[in-house]
Amino acid sequence: MKIVRFMRGEASGYGLVEGNLVYTLEGDPYGDFGQGMRVGRLGRVKLGPPCQPTKIVALGLNYADHAAEAGLPLPEEPVIFLKPLTALIGNLDQIIYPAMSQRVDYEAELAVVIGRRAKNVPSHEARRYVLGYTCSNDVTARDLQQKDSQWTRSKSFDTFCPLGPWIVTDLNPSRLAVTCRVNGQVRQAGNTKDMVFRIWDLISFISQVMTLEPGDVIMTGTPAGVGPLSPGDVVEVEIEGIGTLQNEVVSE
Amino acid sequence: MKIVRFMRGEASGYGLVEGNLVYTLEGDPYGDFGQGMRVGRLGRVKLGPPCQPTKIVALGLNYADHAAEAGLPLPEEPVIFLKPLTALIGNLDQIIYPAMSQRVDYEAELAVVIGRRAKNVPSHEARRYVLGYTCSNDVTARDLQQKDSQWTRSKSFDTFCPLGPWIVTDLNPSRLAVTCRVNGQVRQAGNTKDMVFRIWDLISFISQVMTLEPGDVIMTGTPAGVGPLSPGDVVEVEIEGIGTLQNEVVSE
Repeated sequence: MKIVRFMRGEASGYGLVEGNLVYTLEGDPYGDFGQGMRVGRLGRVKLGPPCQPTKIVALGLNYADHAAEAGLPLPEEPVIFLKPLTALIGNLDQIIYPAMSQRVDYEAELAVVIGRRAKNVPSHEARRYVLGYTCSNDVTARDLQQKDSQWTRSKSFDTFCPLGPWIVTDLNPSRLAVTCRVNGQVRQAGNTKDMVFRIWDLISFISQVMTLEPGDVIMTGTPAGVGPLSPGDVVEVEIEGIGTLQNEVVSE
Repeated sequence: MKIVRFMRGEASGYGLVEGNLVYTLEGDPYGDFGQGMRVGRLGRVKLGPPCQPTKIVALGLNYADHAAEAGLPLPEEPVIFLKPLTALIGNLDQIIYPAMSQRVDYEAELAVVIGRRAKNVPSHEARRYVLGYTCSNDVTARDLQQKDSQWTRSKSFDTFCPLGPWIVTDLNPSRLAVTCRVNGQVRQAGNTKDMVFRIWDLISFISQVMTLEPGDVIMTGTPAGVGPLSPGDVVEVEIEGIGTLQNEVVSE
């Protein structure tokens, strides 16, 4: 099943994608729901970020090849940080290159969307707390990340969290190709099988720190190949079994 | 004016404190509002965190004496990090000492509550974007903060963000005593005049990174004297012109 949020003027709502059509989702996306009325054709219906998180938890250095290219040792425990909700944009929305940075990078990542409130969840039960998976881009002002001790500023600019285009609910996340393209050229070609900490262990770890709420997002880290974006670039995150998240970069 | 959020069973709402009575707030706390019906006596009405933020932005090392005790140089620019909404608790709620840490510290801080959407706000206009001020405690698992490169885990446990008891709207924040007591003993005795970055500059800086929404909270950093808490302790943050935020520490 593919869950979206569609926009109609100022209104928005949860929807379901069936073939190339978007339908309303009737009911609760985190509970019981069914397919409602036809909204329109995919490509003609504007989509927003596919969920409404109360927080976005992201992972640093969760692929060995990326840690190596960053010149950092592999962490013994997951390295987590938060991105603010004001950074969220959907598929085909624009990434705004902020005036404060001279080096903005893409980071293609598999994102997990939480389906049920989760606190102190053991790894072997973590799967039951997942609604599904989507594509994300952990856009990062690399110059500010290297300057600051904390990564928050560099990863928190408005539009620095593209998410979408939809949540796929029936998917095994353990072996999926994660690809990033800039202007059609492949820049990252990783696979979720190379994560340092597995998804179930990440959910368990994070839920021992903070309660995860339905709709909350976990961005699972990026593989090797991160690099810069420029205004005018079109960046795509494609994940096997999900689809492609595409965003254009524009100047502030 | 003192703005609260009061709880009645599962329901909650914005209120106003007048003398020792709580009244409903009729209207929009971020727009036009007036005093409504009497809810009850202060002390008999349960209060929650006094606002409903979409994000909590906190400052590191914003008092020179605290940076010195932490053995860290003063930052050239504000050091920001985020705390998740699941960490929020109100006055008289309990701080839960997590099993993952063996060293949990208090950090008394003045908190700013945003009143209007703020993006790229110049310092000299920042005052207009403030609804008011309240007390906060940036509870921190110090052992995990020292172990991790990023502070997020150590500052994000459930209950690690006491906030309240109310928002005071008519206050000059530039010279207020900030006191922390544990079991009645003074542990921190700072003053907001000693901040490294002034409140107006903080709002301006943060708003250049991310849009601040009504209800969002900025925790402005802690003065010297941070130290450990133990289960059973009662910790109080008192700020001149606002009042006292009191929380008991309990084991997980």
